[in-house]
Amino acid sequence: MAKNNMAALLKQVADQQLSVDAAMAQLDDPGFVDLDYAKVDTDRQRRTGYPEVIYGEGKTAEQIIGIIQAMLTTKVNILVTRVSQDKADQVLQAYPDMTYRDDAQVMLWQQTALTPTTHKIAVVTAGTSDLKVAEEAALTAEAFGNVVSRVYDVGVAGIHRLFARLDVIRDAQVVIVIAGMEGALASVVGGLVDKPVIAVPTSVGYGASFGGMSALLTMLNSCASGITVVNIDNGFGAGYSASQINHLTENK
Amino acid sequence: MAKNNMAALLKQVADQQLSVDAAMAQLDDPGFVDLDYAKVDTDRQRRTGYPEVIYGEGKTAEQIIGIIQAMLTTKVNILVTRVSQDKADQVLQAYPDMTYRDDAQVMLWQQTALTPTTHKIAVVTAGTSDLKVAEEAALTAEAFGNVVSRVYDVGVAGIHRLFARLDVIRDAQVVIVIAGMEGALASVVGGLVDKPVIAVPTSVGYGASFGGMSALLTMLNSCASGITVVNIDNGFGAGYSASQINHLTENK
Amino acid sequence: MAKNNMAALLKQVADQQLSVDAAMAQLDDPGFVDLDYAKVDTDRQRRTGYPEVIYGEGKTAEQIIGIIQAMLTTKVNILVTRVSQDKADQVLQAYPDMTYRDDAQVMLWQQTALTPTTHKIAVVTAGTSDLKVAEEAALTAEAFGNVVSRVYDVGVAGIHRLFARLDVIRDAQVVIVIAGMEGALASVVGGLVDKPVIAVPTSVGYGASFGGMSALLTMLNSCASGITVVNIDNGFGAGYSASQINHLTENK
Amino acid sequence: MAKNNMAALLKQVADQQLSVDAAMAQLDDPGFVDLDYAKVDTDRQRRTGYPEVIYGEGKTAEQIIGIIQAMLTTKVNILVTRVSQDKADQVLQAYPDMTYRDDAQVMLWQQTALTPTTHKIAVVTAGTSDLKVAEEAALTAEAFGNVVSRVYDVGVAGIHRLFARLDVIRDAQVVIVIAGMEGALASVVGGLVDKPVIAVPTSVGYGASFGGMSALLTMLNSCASGITVVNIDNGFGAGYSASQINHLTENK
Amino acid sequence: MAKNNMAALLKQVADQQLSVDAAMAQLDDPGFVDLDYAKVDTDRQRRTGYPEVIYGEGKTAEQIIGIIQAMLTTKVNILVTRVSQDKADQVLQAYPDMTYRDDAQVMLWQQTALTPTTHKIAVVTAGTSDLKVAEEAALTAEAFGNVVSRVYDVGVAGIHRLFARLDVIRDAQVVIVIAGMEGALASVVGGLVDKPVIAVPTSVGYGASFGGMSALLTMLNSCASGITVVNIDNGFGAGYSASQINHLTENK
Amino acid sequence: MAKNNMAALLKQVADQQLSVDAAMAQLDDPGFVDLDYAKVDTDRQRRTGYPEVIYGEGKTAEQIIGIIQAMLTTKVNILVTRVSQDKADQVLQAYPDMTYRDDAQVMLWQQTALTPTTHKIAVVTAGTSDLKVAEEAALTAEAFGNVVSRVYDVGVAGIHRLFARLDVIRDAQVVIVIAGMEGALASVVGGLVDKPVIAVPTSVGYGASFGGMSALLTMLNSCASGITVVNIDNGFGAGYSASQINHLTENK
Amino acid sequence: MAKNNMAALLKQVADQQLSVDAAMAQLDDPGFVDLDYAKVDTDRQRRTGYPEVIYGEGKTAEQIIGIIQAMLTTKVNILVTRVSQDKADQVLQAYPDMTYRDDAQVMLWQQTALTPTTHKIAVVTAGTSDLKVAEEAALTAEAFGNVVSRVYDVGVAGIHRLFARLDVIRDAQVVIVIAGMEGALASVVGGLVDKPVIAVPTSVGYGASFGGMSALLTMLNSCASGITVVNIDNGFGAGYSASQINHLTENK
Amino acid sequence: MAKNNMAALLKQVADQQLSVDAAMAQLDDPGFVDLDYAKVDTDRQRRTGYPEVIYGEGKTAEQIIGIIQAMLTTKVNILVTRVSQDKADQVLQAYPDMTYRDDAQVMLWQQTALTPTTHKIAVVTAGTSDLKVAEEAALTAEAFGNVVSRVYDVGVAGIHRLFARLDVIRDAQVVIVIAGMEGALASVVGGLVDKPVIAVPTSVGYGASFGGMSALLTMLNSCASGITVVNIDNGFGAGYSASQINHLTENK
Repeated sequence: MAKNNMAALLKQVADQQLSVDAAMAQLDDPGFVDLDYAKVDTDRQRRTGYPEVIYGEGKTAEQIIGIIQAMLTTKVNILVTRVSQDKADQVLQAYPDMTYRDDAQVMLWQQTALTPTTHKIAVVTAGTSDLKVAEEAALTAEAFGNVVSRVYDVGVAGIHRLFARLDVIRDAQVVIVIAGMEGALASVVGGLVDKPVIAVPTSVGYGASFGGMSALLTMLNSCASGITVVNIDNGFGAGYSASQINHLTENK
Repeated sequence: MAKNNMAALLKQVADQQLSVDAAMAQLDDPGFVDLDYAKVDTDRQRRTGYPEVIYGEGKTAEQIIGIIQAMLTTKVNILVTRVSQDKADQVLQAYPDMTYRDDAQVMLWQQTALTPTTHKIAVVTAGTSDLKVAEEAALTAEAFGNVVSRVYDVGVAGIHRLFARLDVIRDAQVVIVIAGMEGALASVVGGLVDKPVIAVPTSVGYGASFGGMSALLTMLNSCASGITVVNIDNGFGAGYSASQINHLTENK
Repeated sequence: MAKNNMAALLKQVADQQLSVDAAMAQLDDPGFVDLDYAKVDTDRQRRTGYPEVIYGEGKTAEQIIGIIQAMLTTKVNILVTRVSQDKADQVLQAYPDMTYRDDAQVMLWQQTALTPTTHKIAVVTAGTSDLKVAEEAALTAEAFGNVVSRVYDVGVAGIHRLFARLDVIRDAQVVIVIAGMEGALASVVGGLVDKPVIAVPTSVGYGASFGGMSALLTMLNSCASGITVVNIDNGFGAGYSASQINHLTENK
Repeated sequence: MAKNNMAALLKQVADQQLSVDAAMAQLDDPGFVDLDYAKVDTDRQRRTGYPEVIYGEGKTAEQIIGIIQAMLTTKVNILVTRVSQDKADQVLQAYPDMTYRDDAQVMLWQQTALTPTTHKIAVVTAGTSDLKVAEEAALTAEAFGNVVSRVYDVGVAGIHRLFARLDVIRDAQVVIVIAGMEGALASVVGGLVDKPVIAVPTSVGYGASFGGMSALLTMLNSCASGITVVNIDNGFGAGYSASQINHLTENK
Repeated sequence: MAKNNMAALLKQVADQQLSVDAAMAQLDDPGFVDLDYAKVDTDRQRRTGYPEVIYGEGKTAEQIIGIIQAMLTTKVNILVTRVSQDKADQVLQAYPDMTYRDDAQVMLWQQTALTPTTHKIAVVTAGTSDLKVAEEAALTAEAFGNVVSRVYDVGVAGIHRLFARLDVIRDAQVVIVIAGMEGALASVVGGLVDKPVIAVPTSVGYGASFGGMSALLTMLNSCASGITVVNIDNGFGAGYSASQINHLTENK
Repeated sequence: MAKNNMAALLKQVADQQLSVDAAMAQLDDPGFVDLDYAKVDTDRQRRTGYPEVIYGEGKTAEQIIGIIQAMLTTKVNILVTRVSQDKADQVLQAYPDMTYRDDAQVMLWQQTALTPTTHKIAVVTAGTSDLKVAEEAALTAEAFGNVVSRVYDVGVAGIHRLFARLDVIRDAQVVIVIAGMEGALASVVGGLVDKPVIAVPTSVGYGASFGGMSALLTMLNSCASGITVVNIDNGFGAGYSASQINHLTENK
Repeated sequence: MAKNNMAALLKQVADQQLSVDAAMAQLDDPGFVDLDYAKVDTDRQRRTGYPEVIYGEGKTAEQIIGIIQAMLTTKVNILVTRVSQDKADQVLQAYPDMTYRDDAQVMLWQQTALTPTTHKIAVVTAGTSDLKVAEEAALTAEAFGNVVSRVYDVGVAGIHRLFARLDVIRDAQVVIVIAGMEGALASVVGGLVDKPVIAVPTSVGYGASFGGMSALLTMLNSCASGITVVNIDNGFGAGYSASQINHLTENK
Repeated sequence: MAKNNMAALLKQVADQQLSVDAAMAQLDDPGFVDLDYAKVDTDRQRRTGYPEVIYGEGKTAEQIIGIIQAMLTTKVNILVTRVSQDKADQVLQAYPDMTYRDDAQVMLWQQTALTPTTHKIAVVTAGTSDLKVAEEAALTAEAFGNVVSRVYDVGVAGIHRLFARLDVIRDAQVVIVIAGMEGALASVVGGLVDKPVIAVPTSVGYGASFGGMSALLTMLNSCASGITVVNIDNGFGAGYSASQINHLTENK
């Protein structure tokens, strides 16, 4: 509980407007729903500006359904990532209003309409094989109300493709660059734009790509400035951070 | 050369306002000064919003002096990172107007005054040993005109210290979290604020910290959303990206 | 054979109460049953306070059944870990008195009732996906007579959930903290309690979590004191060590 | 602030025994001294049972002196680890009552006498080269009032040396096993005692020992139960955890 | 656009032979076909001497078919690597003129006949298990018009087999050496020939071969000079580079 | 061709007992049968004392059958390792005289009876799960005529089991120690015997055992002398080397 | 000895033109000078086209002098790499005709003049810090008679610098690309030229560059075709291989 | 104590020839001298055939002198490895009869003359830089009475040097192969001899040799049979194991 809230509460108690028990109840409000197997964070929107997003991997369909149930008490938009087709089918039976995008393995329940942002987020990929991660990023950003420009398959092996789309990229307020193999695209883009670049290494590749390790190291060691990095294949994380940055100017 | 610039140029040629040779000269303007051992990027400010920053490691004092010389043609502010005391002394002899901060190994020549930002960047560290990296981040951000709040030594071993400074952190528009050892602070902060968090792993630690690898992996795998990561000990990179984000609202 | 036992034996021989052959037979008592493919350690309870626990992975159902058979000569409680449903079905046919918990892949035969401990072990997880490992730990501890408090899904992304359950955790004599991804929970708990903390990294995560490596390094490098670590996903090991510690005060 | 404390405070406010401002002051008590470069955790003893221990590496002598100064307000015993001879000399000039053990790089100020424990902690090493880490562990444990048995150089290459000292080891309530190279000693001890074993890998070795990685992996993968592990060369951490465990029975 | 082309273009504009719009159209010619999920690089043959090669892994059969469709506008030879039997069947239905070699997982459409090279490329393997990678290399080289000598299973465990085929190897202008396990063959060949050697580590092996890592390190650290290395299992890359080198003398 | 053989050959040519062509034919005898996909080393028995052993992994059943066919010209004993049940069935159809041991995945054709060795090889395992590798080692050694003592499941968690079988182990001339997890058994045995010890790490384990890496490092860093190591799970290699050593005294 | 040489030799023996002893002497000619601590390979030029190059690291000045002495019997050009200033001084005292370049740590004795090649090798670096490795490559290539174009500091953070020098690079027959940090330059160049590219990762960088590992992985995983890779910092190897390739057309 | 010894002892007690106390004293004989910082294993020669060898690294000169003192009670030959010149000087002052070889960092005190072996051990190196490790191996073997053949600098870059010395190598009963960089020599030798090969990887190399890791992996993954491996730079271990094997035929 923040300091000024606490002072207000104490004042109410001192003024006898609030009993000690009632004050304790307010202090006791846990800010989560306890499902035993999960403690759903109903306070997150207040704290971080976004409701909890459900990470679907390692959870059963029953658990996902239960967590959604707990979140329904508020009118938040519900996003579930990394949901297999199989689990999605079960969840859709419980909540037919949800949508599922199998290429990105993302479920969404847009309960409340959001105002589209005035600025854009560009999602740029090096290759065709990076699309799954790219769509996870793009759908995440869109679920939070951002307008997204997709620029796919402009890797450095044919760098003129990147230059041909540079104006689209430069038009965005935040740029997400997604690449596997050697991940060189992030450095090249970083040297050409004046906006924050979020780099996402993907596990696309073979041999010494070591499941995305190669692209990850490339991006962390970039000689270009202004690049920050998220986990391998973490399209969601990139979309989330990009949305936070993009909304800085919206919120003004 | 961007498309609309090119169209304008072609029009001037068509209108005979510009000779073919003059047009070629403009097209030929390389955007850099060639020193043989270095090609100083004089076009960077136009392209990325910031002038080139000189990375001092692996360069001789002579090379640093030469590159500064090449940059002096424009009135940009000159930042040099990772300069040892020894090299700094030589550079200061050549350019007595520069300043040197030995705790952060950073040199600065503020040739042009910058308007301070209305929003702040918070630089938060887990421990006292992270200060060198933190000051590199803070000085970089300040060199680009940002107002910086420093919150040092609030690591999770005594988490009440973090809560006691949470209002300072929440007051910033971007948060840089710097931590070595297990780097857990980034996740905790990430779960408590609604602003972008840039995490910097440091090489502070021993044994299985593997020179910062442990903190790096922690930050990449954070269960909290809204965290992006830069290279180990890369205070400069964090300060640079934070400045880019912080200026999004300034530029409006 | 311990020194005082040996002195006693020698005295019996000197007093002609024991023939040389009989003495040799006692010395020869191997302390195990030899099944060729396994040498079942029947002396372990005397030596370490606990009977041998059967590690089910890499053993056939036939081998597990044979080892249980060899252990039945004593009235010890029999615990088998990492048993797939398939193998468990075969073992249950041979010993219908055993129980199987498929979520934890643990089989148990509680032949002798144990006095419940007066103190508790808290099993704390960061997320819902850590439950399998958590239940292996909890069931192991319970199989050895400990009273267990379960506190699940209180990871640092919503740290108020942890604070809301801190009294339950502080009420325990030993705390097991189980977390995947970046594993930051162990450090936070370590800084808040005055009891030994055993940290279990789990393989929950993706990309740069490298099968639990990230959480393992986090826990080994914790800035909080009082944390020791077991192998990735080793719920059994944590439950076992916690039981040893918890029984220190029981045995008094 | 714990729940029952909070209820008491609220009651005092309701009873007009405490003004709102005075209540806020109590709530505001930060539990640390802020030195800018460090926030000294003065609340730690209450929370974890032990005062803050100063980790000397990466801190200047001035910073160490300042932190000690801040801790002197309470009469806690002050322990500083990883202090080089050079820094220790400066600290000793400021506080001549402190002692320094150069083989373990540990400084101590025993301001308050502690009751020696009734049970012992055994510190066991595989080789002579592990002594530095062993003494850090032993001195830490002794600083917290524990009685320590030292059993050095009983590695498995001559396992009869271990058996010859087994009664000393078994007499302890907690066993710390310290080994470099292949670290096999931890498993052997773990199979022979009925007390918790804390294993400390050391960086002793060469080639494929990879700075202690080999011994660390050995200990994490031990086939013996009841072993938990701390970071490479982390004698302090082992001594601290062992003290926590050893005091469980003292506190009764 | 290269400099002399640009000068010519400008001259045409100055001479009013070309309108500004027409000039912009030429400058706008992107050099690729945009399929949304892919930007097919139709300019590559001009730039690098070879048309784009389609990397089949991570692409759907539909995507492969679409990319081939886009390439058909020019009469280039179409090579697709890493195509599973399953995908190949679908592609063959669309383009019955293509051929598929299942042992090398390579598809080819030789639309234009190529002049065979006068010099040869030798493809040498250490073992029988390296054949899949070897055939990918050989077929790639042949697709580009090279004459290939195959020398299989001449690993160093029976080095006389290598010597018996040394004249065939020495007769080539470029040598590709393919080996898994410890990959020693590359060094031995490198010490015996006066032609460039391209080494391909394969993932053949087990245990500490770590998926080809062992052979890769061997080849990078070769004590013999004149060896360059490509990614693990990258037969295509070796065949491609060998073809480039082999054609240096053809083009004269 | 060895030097004295060459001198003899030259002398025959000088004496006109041998034509130049016949001499060249002898020199040309390649010492292998060329099957295109394999060059079967028919000279190996002369060179290394043992015929080629066929490594079944990565070879098709057809290839294995073909290689055996090529070896049948001499009356050598044929050993094939790492043969799956499926491939073995096909090979057995072609050569019904062969035998197959599915637990060790080994095929054998004992065409020539061998004199059993007077000394023994001991094959010692830490656990039951190491049996597959142990049998590969034991069967390999037996295929070369060695007498083998099996001592299984004597790992250090119950070290009395090892001591109880120490006389069997000490009775051998070479000792093979096979262990997964932390692999500590090798060091303990190494400190107790006066014979060469060959250590085989196995991939038995989980988490931080990293597929046998942990046991491998343990064995390489052993504090006991007289231990050499082979690749993870390489039972064949250990059996082969042990046989070489064991036959040193047989051949006298 | 090659086959036709052997046939000639045998014929001479058959014709009594050569005694058996004389033939044996020819066969015995070892092709090296034995210095005990080194066996200098005097046959290498015949075999591989280049004389032995002396690797200076790990050799004493005395050993280097001795090896040069042994090589002086033939009139080959002598190249010594990785020679510290200190050792070079001693060698120069013995052989004042040699030259030493301290920035590249290379010694050279050009005993025989070489015809300059008609084609060029381009040596391209990403940054100023890569110069040491670049000069090792360039000097090696020049020592073998190649004409070298140097293009330094054209990394992707300012990619227009690369485009400005593209014609120089395209004018070469072989391109060596040298880069540290993330090493992205190799891929970009690879996509722009139609000549073989040899990529050299350097150890320039910090943090997660892991001593050049990051750049090495980048280059091995390049999405551009036609790139082969040498060891980290191996300028010599790149210069050597480039020379081999460049001389293919010279030798015609 | 072995079984038959124990039976004899018991019989003596039964026969009253030995008091219980005297029997206990014999059983209590620890087999080591306890120096507190070290427990010198005086029983090792009986158990393993060789006296304890002192590993000098990580021990002070005082400790080494003390351990030698404790060993002097028996007339064993004393070997100390990894002794720096500095420490050696102090030890030589205490024991002037010892000898020191600075190139191998080995000290020796040959108190008892040994019969030279009838068979030889060959020590073979790939390069000149491997000599330090080679001499540690050779001197160790010689200290145990073996006759050693040295064959240095016969690496695979000039493989004819190896063939020229093959008869010397084949004449030995055990072969030690020592190589850094890619370590390919071990496989080549392994395919050419019929004796056990012990491979020693060295840390000679740079870049991706990773301190000997590359050579270690090469040797573990060798395609040749009959090769076992010791730790990186472990010349002593190889010499020791080779001596054990070589003495198998001596002891007959």
